[in-house]
Amino acid sequence: MSTATSPRVLNHPAREDIRLGPVLHALSDPVRLRIVRAMARGAGEEFSCSYFALPVTKSTCTHHFRVLRESGVLRQTYQGTAKMNSLRRADLDALFPGLLDSVLAAADAQADRLGEELPAQGG
Amino acid sequence: MSTATSPRVLNHPAREDIRLGPVLHALSDPVRLRIVRAMARGAGEEFSCSYFALPVTKSTCTHHFRVLRESGVLRQTYQGTAKMNSLRRADLDALFPGLLDSVLAAADAQADRLGEELPAQGG
Repeated sequence: MSTATSPRVLNHPAREDIRLGPVLHALSDPVRLRIVRAMARGAGEEFSCSYFALPVTKSTCTHHFRVLRESGVLRQTYQGTAKMNSLRRADLDALFPGLLDSVLAAADAQADRLGEELPAQGG
Repeated sequence: MSTATSPRVLNHPAREDIRLGPVLHALSDPVRLRIVRAMARGAGEEFSCSYFALPVTKSTCTHHFRVLRESGVLRQTYQGTAKMNSLRRADLDALFPGLLDSVLAAADAQADRLGEELPAQGG
């Protein structure tokens, strides 16, 4: 009988296997970009999924984190049964200098222009 | 009876309607990124579709140019029956300073790393 536990092996591309196309695709979704912006504000820290107060279902949230992980944008690790997430900034900056910062700046500029704010963070 | 002529009205977002998500999505596809890289090397010039020697069918090529146009990455205009394409660099740079340059630099770095070259240009 299967259990409700997720598979314990989480696939991540090695730094040299990260590709620009999947990274841009991962960042092109507004919900995923929100996640990345929130993580970038807490540099180096790890966040559980529930940290991000996202206007989507849990399964959609899981999907978005998987896209971010499989593209190489973030790293997910288990701490007990919780997945913790951290931005792979060192890998991205080494491969694509300035790219992540310019995307974050563009997102900030657009949010200012449109009067959007990052959602309040969960507990 | 319909003719083979494409509709003559080509929709473009105004500068203020260009959004980061669709721009990143447009740039996330390898073929579209090739087109943008080739155009960026000829700053300000206009190119016909046939300029780009792309390994895709004509209808796929048309699709890619439409995605680039509708996201605001390039402008398409008719000159006679030919569509000419130009990068909307001024609009993109005004909205998202440094973004296009960092994506182009990232694409160059990746191509160098993987030993890829831009395709030979058509006639």
